[in-house]
Amino acid sequence: MADRFMSMRNLKFTLHEVIGASPEGSGHTRKSMDMVLDAAFDFAKKALHPLYEEMDRHPPELIDGTVSVHKEMRSILTTLGKDGWISAIFPEEWGGDNMPPSLLHAVCFIFASANYSASVYSGLTMGAANLILTFGSDELKRTFVPTMLEGKWQGTMALTEPEAGTSLGDLTTAAAPQEDGTYRITGEKIFISAGDHDAVDNVVHLLLARIEGAPAGVKGISLFVVPKLRPNDGALRPNDVTVTQIFHKMGYRGAPITALSFGEKGDCTGYLVGEANRGLSYMFHMMNDARLEVGMGATAIATAAYHAALDYTRNRRQGRRLTDGSGAPPIPIIEHQDVKRMLLFQRAVSEGALSLILQCSRYEALSHTAPDEEKADYHLLLELLTPVAKTFPAEMGILSTSASIQCFGGYGYCEDFPVEQHFRDMRIHAIHEGTTGIQGMDLLGRKVVMKNGKALLLLSREIDKTIKRVQDYPALQAMAQALSEAKETLSTTTMTLGGVAKEKGPEAFLANATLYLELFGHVTIAWQWLLQMGVVSEKLAGQNVRKADLAFYNGKLDVGRYYFGYELPKIGALSIALAQPALTLEIEAACFTD
Amino acid sequence: MADRFMSMRNLKFTLHEVIGASPEGSGHTRKSMDMVLDAAFDFAKKALHPLYEEMDRHPPELIDGTVSVHKEMRSILTTLGKDGWISAIFPEEWGGDNMPPSLLHAVCFIFASANYSASVYSGLTMGAANLILTFGSDELKRTFVPTMLEGKWQGTMALTEPEAGTSLGDLTTAAAPQEDGTYRITGEKIFISAGDHDAVDNVVHLLLARIEGAPAGVKGISLFVVPKLRPNDGALRPNDVTVTQIFHKMGYRGAPITALSFGEKGDCTGYLVGEANRGLSYMFHMMNDARLEVGMGATAIATAAYHAALDYTRNRRQGRRLTDGSGAPPIPIIEHQDVKRMLLFQRAVSEGALSLILQCSRYEALSHTAPDEEKADYHLLLELLTPVAKTFPAEMGILSTSASIQCFGGYGYCEDFPVEQHFRDMRIHAIHEGTTGIQGMDLLGRKVVMKNGKALLLLSREIDKTIKRVQDYPALQAMAQALSEAKETLSTTTMTLGGVAKEKGPEAFLANATLYLELFGHVTIAWQWLLQMGVVSEKLAGQNVRKADLAFYNGKLDVGRYYFGYELPKIGALSIALAQPALTLEIEAACFTD
Repeated sequence: MADRFMSMRNLKFTLHEVIGASPEGSGHTRKSMDMVLDAAFDFAKKALHPLYEEMDRHPPELIDGTVSVHKEMRSILTTLGKDGWISAIFPEEWGGDNMPPSLLHAVCFIFASANYSASVYSGLTMGAANLILTFGSDELKRTFVPTMLEGKWQGTMALTEPEAGTSLGDLTTAAAPQEDGTYRITGEKIFISAGDHDAVDNVVHLLLARIEGAPAGVKGISLFVVPKLRPNDGALRPNDVTVTQIFHKMGYRGAPITALSFGEKGDCTGYLVGEANRGLSYMFHMMNDARLEVGMGATAIATAAYHAALDYTRNRRQGRRLTDGSGAPPIPIIEHQDVKRMLLFQRAVSEGALSLILQCSRYEALSHTAPDEEKADYHLLLELLTPVAKTFPAEMGILSTSASIQCFGGYGYCEDFPVEQHFRDMRIHAIHEGTTGIQGMDLLGRKVVMKNGKALLLLSREIDKTIKRVQDYPALQAMAQALSEAKETLSTTTMTLGGVAKEKGPEAFLANATLYLELFGHVTIAWQWLLQMGVVSEKLAGQNVRKADLAFYNGKLDVGRYYFGYELPKIGALSIALAQPALTLEIEAACFTD
Repeated sequence: MADRFMSMRNLKFTLHEVIGASPEGSGHTRKSMDMVLDAAFDFAKKALHPLYEEMDRHPPELIDGTVSVHKEMRSILTTLGKDGWISAIFPEEWGGDNMPPSLLHAVCFIFASANYSASVYSGLTMGAANLILTFGSDELKRTFVPTMLEGKWQGTMALTEPEAGTSLGDLTTAAAPQEDGTYRITGEKIFISAGDHDAVDNVVHLLLARIEGAPAGVKGISLFVVPKLRPNDGALRPNDVTVTQIFHKMGYRGAPITALSFGEKGDCTGYLVGEANRGLSYMFHMMNDARLEVGMGATAIATAAYHAALDYTRNRRQGRRLTDGSGAPPIPIIEHQDVKRMLLFQRAVSEGALSLILQCSRYEALSHTAPDEEKADYHLLLELLTPVAKTFPAEMGILSTSASIQCFGGYGYCEDFPVEQHFRDMRIHAIHEGTTGIQGMDLLGRKVVMKNGKALLLLSREIDKTIKRVQDYPALQAMAQALSEAKETLSTTTMTLGGVAKEKGPEAFLANATLYLELFGHVTIAWQWLLQMGVVSEKLAGQNVRKADLAFYNGKLDVGRYYFGYELPKIGALSIALAQPALTLEIEAACFTD
């Protein structure tokens, strides 16, 4: 396996030079951020990456009711706890140092590109701890959070049920009040990541359930802490949570995904988090972050696959230039035009997506640290871009890892190289934390229309800032113009759909929301590429560009030109499709005959 | 697993009503063709489909030098032999009945949609036998072919070597003349499908090697029969062929892909097929068929995945229409607009590709049976369309099976349903029998330019015939116009590239050949959809349309409209990219920094 799974050079370039993730207020300097990144890389390289293939070949097993995972996971999790990675984003009183979102996501990127499955365990614990710390009582915090942050207890998000996946309002897991203020939980949950395993001493589920008598639908859902083992006078007692199944998956096989049964014996206790019936809004508080993490996971996998392909195509010699005779020696296949094009495509996707997600993290940070009158605007930008930053890498990553395989020819299809695993690992991301279809409806049906379309206006201004920023570079003007036109296409399409909403109602409005999301993705990634090209042009216009940087910067300009020349034009077909009445509205399901 | 893996209704519609695969001269009537198809379906359903998942879960193993495959494969192969499927395409003297190409490919489609891996064994034997029967001596034919056609001996194509995959001219396997007219073979071959296994008594390799003193490059390659066991006085003796490795693959796991060593002990005998140094041209004689079979394999897998998704989305209830309140009962997810759109996409790909490949088979048949003055034209059409018919389903099938997974949500990613296997099985097709990159160069660099571009002119006429045929149907005129414009785009793009070839040479000409192939694919599939819509319109205009047919025909019109509305517009971005000088020519490999 190639030793390189990501480029620290590119990550730092994106974080510092492109996004300018502001360390102000975070207690971080650029230097301290780099130290964190270097430490993360060191851990990823030594502890996570060597297990990447092994964890795939030996997936979790359900043995006597407990899920057995790779034996190294326990030491990985306790190290992540001990070294402060799990607590990093939290305040000092919880052992953290208020790590800013962009740095957190950059660290997630490093871990996930080394070994996606291994990286999710602690991410889930972090998310669950965050929910308890944000909405839970002091007692819940004291009881659960410290051990979670030590990596000794696993946190989960237990949302999905057999009959309520995408449609959360239909969930039926029940919570009956008990005299001591706790609740008796009964129900089934499926697709629970890290829902049980033997690398921790306990599992703490953040579970959605319906309190007896609660309103139907999404307004009657409450959030509970439901541990596998109930802390009781310093001891841990079984809490009637049973693993009924582990899911055997195509990829992402290093992490156990489980089906759980709660309260089969009537002895499962849950602790209400915050107020009753507000569970979904609490959960959605974490949703942006969870979705950005999925986008980052997809980006990381695409990145690792690209680096494997880069390594292979540089070293594998076969064929010769078309202008050379058959007597010439074979050339490294990276010299073939088609291979170069595929490598450009992979970089365009993964480096563009990285940039967009870190941009989102910056907005997230600014929504807390900006002057008060600007906070809401940054939050709107974050809300708007989250479904895009989740979906672009998840969907394009399928094609990008497919291109990585193609660079290897037949070997890419074999287990001898990691890219077939990257391709399999990638495919979950368009599904978990809300499918692409859901992201499209979220973007068009909620985010675009909220506050009378203000978020889109704010984005338009951000894009204009970038266009203005590059105005002194003649070589970028055609692309700035193309981005401007693409933004106009997005705007026109949005208005057309707005008219559809008024005339024909929500179903017609949202019928092609997935395609709208795809169009939106291309425009925002083009924006990130113009931004990157602008930054590079500024650097190149300056003094004393180091030779090593020159190749890196020129490479960036190449990839940016590729994006504008080959990928952005794809919005043409999407805008044509979106300008028509959605065909599916006219089609009966009965016309799908056998 | 859903019991339906393909639609006989659609296959017969495409074969008889759309393509009008002419049974004249083949000894077949439409009725006898249907009997063959029904018999194939019966066998596929009973013998092949039940093993689809099992063969994936228990892939071949290399045990003590022999490859062990699923225990049912022996009976499958002998049944395929006994019932005449392996000999079907050959003349009566070899037990066949001159099965016409379109019927052969339709049968391959049925087998491959039931179980792709299981279907390749006999296909490979058929191809190898065909080479011996076409170019071999009477003795070779008598010695090898009958037992191969009985399904007792496996045939293979042994081309690829560790340092010569795509670049066949570099192969180094050596053949030294021996006194008895045979050759002593030494060399290594990799990626040999069904290169060894225990479901047959012998393996007959059709192997490319270089006779001592032969010219360098592709002009010095000869074709040999090299059996695993040498027939000698009625006995079979080891022929010094060793399995050095089996490849562990992401999908397509039911068929063994091997690395073989020939003549490690200096005792491997090969028998020259035809004349020395003409091996590559012999092999290419079979190449169109082999590539159409790969396209058909991809089409079949996409079809099976679509039927699994159709079954699931009809029966799985979740969520409700956006206009219904939360009190309404959940609806089958096929009613959701996004799901319907994904189903339309899957049908557009698989049914469009099926139509194109059967169209190619028809041209193949006509290149033998048409009046003499037309034969060459049909052969040109076959040559031109083969790389397209191979690649469109192989590449679009990745997205189509991905959409099948998406229809299942999280379940689609799990082994509980077959679609994750379809997605894995699909990915080989853009690689084997010539990668997509190679197909692009074949199309643009050889097929489009041959005979001064005559093939493209012939295709243009075929498309015009279809446009003319639909002229009486007002509802099809916008699409006929769109196809006409798409054809013009293809033509303009081709001329532009022709200019590049003249001015800048072959490397610039072919740099974006893959994108040209993609554009070509969309135009030809749109043509097939207009043809299908025309046929349907003729039927609907007639008397006495049965109610069952009405839903089928209306469904066809829906999918056709989908293709024109959502897929064909994608040529816009491709033609933009192809109109520019290829970016990769300006990019040094060194700009891909770490």
